[in-house]
Parts: sequence; C-alpha cells; structure tokens
Amino acid sequence: MLLVVTYDVDTTNKEGEHRLRKVAQLCERYGMRVQNSVFEVLLDAAQLTTLKCELEKIIEPDVDSIRIYRLGNSYKNKIEVMGKTSVLQAGEPLLL
Amino acid sequence: MLLVVTYDVDTTNKEGEHRLRKVAQLCERYGMRVQNSVFEVLLDAAQLTTLKCELEKIIEPDVDSIRIYRLGNSYKNKIEVMGKTSVLQAGEPLLL
Repeated sequence: MLLVVTYDVDTTNKEGEHRLRKVAQLCERYGMRVQNSVFEVLLDAAQLTTLKCELEKIIEPDVDSIRIYRLGNSYKNKIEVMGKTSVLQAGEPLLL
Repeated sequence: MLLVVTYDVDTTNKEGEHRLRKVAQLCERYGMRVQNSVFEVLLDAAQLTTLKCELEKIIEPDVDSIRIYRLGNSYKNKIEVMGKTSVLQAGEPLLL
C-alpha cells in the first residue's frame, strides 16, 4: 500500500536538527521524498510497523509530529501534483 | 471527501515568502492545519476545483510544489498520528 508520511520536527535547538536529519534519513530508506517533509512509501503492514517503531525511537513526542496517511494499493488516481515535480518523483515510489 | 494538501513554497526571496503566506491563508479557509505545511480539508469535487484554481493563481510552478492526496469519505482509519497533535486537530477537519 502507498503511505504518505509527513513530519514536523521542532528544530529550535541542535537536538531537534539531529532528530530531523534522522527522520529524513529513515524515511529515505523506505521511500521517495516528494517535498521537504513529505515522503511517499510503498510498504506492507509489517514494514509499516517497523517504520513506526523506528520513528518512535527518534522523535520527541511533545514537540515533533508525524502523520501517516494510507492511500491503499489503488493510489494513482488519488494524488494530484501542482507546480514543481522533483526528479525523484518521475518513477514509482521507491522501496529500498 | 478528505483531502490532504501539502506544499513546499520556495522562500529564498520575499516573493516566495509572500506566496507561502497566501497559500497558507487560502488553505486555512478550507480546512485544518495539522503541520506547518500540511492541511486536511473536507471538500466536494466542485470545491476542490475551486481550491486548485486559486492555488494555481498563487504558486510559481517552476519552484513551488503542491500535492493533494484524496483519502475519500472513509478516512478515519487511514490516518495515523505520532507525537504532538495540534490543538486544531482535536475535532473534525474544518470546512469554512
């Protein structure tokens, strides 16, 4: 299924900047960065559980926010893009 | 239907900062800000057409990016939240 992962990490201090990098690096392992803080990832339920577990280890829940939207398997007609499309977006979401 | 609107606006100059404010103000009219650059909005097809038309007037398509994800009408089990939840998120997505 396709998941959209969006995140806001509080970067008002160095620890936050570190968490932001860690979240981005983790999401890059799973999928395609389509905006600065938005990833599209193709995962099954078990992989999603693993991703969430890894994210929980990184974030500071009082100040950071992650939202995961499930678009399912028939996702192609559920995404509209306006303006710039990143190079990475040319193909399918990546699963590494 | 529930839509998730995410945006990256190039703010390397004052015009970009202005566009960013305009996009945020527009999305605020339609729905609920759940992260810095992520809104959840409840719209029908006609309202979506209007929103996209208004967004097109604001953005600079070569440098700005907007993505709209359709979660449909049965969206409650399609959203997972980790970490901080904003005050606005307590209720349903807003439609003004």
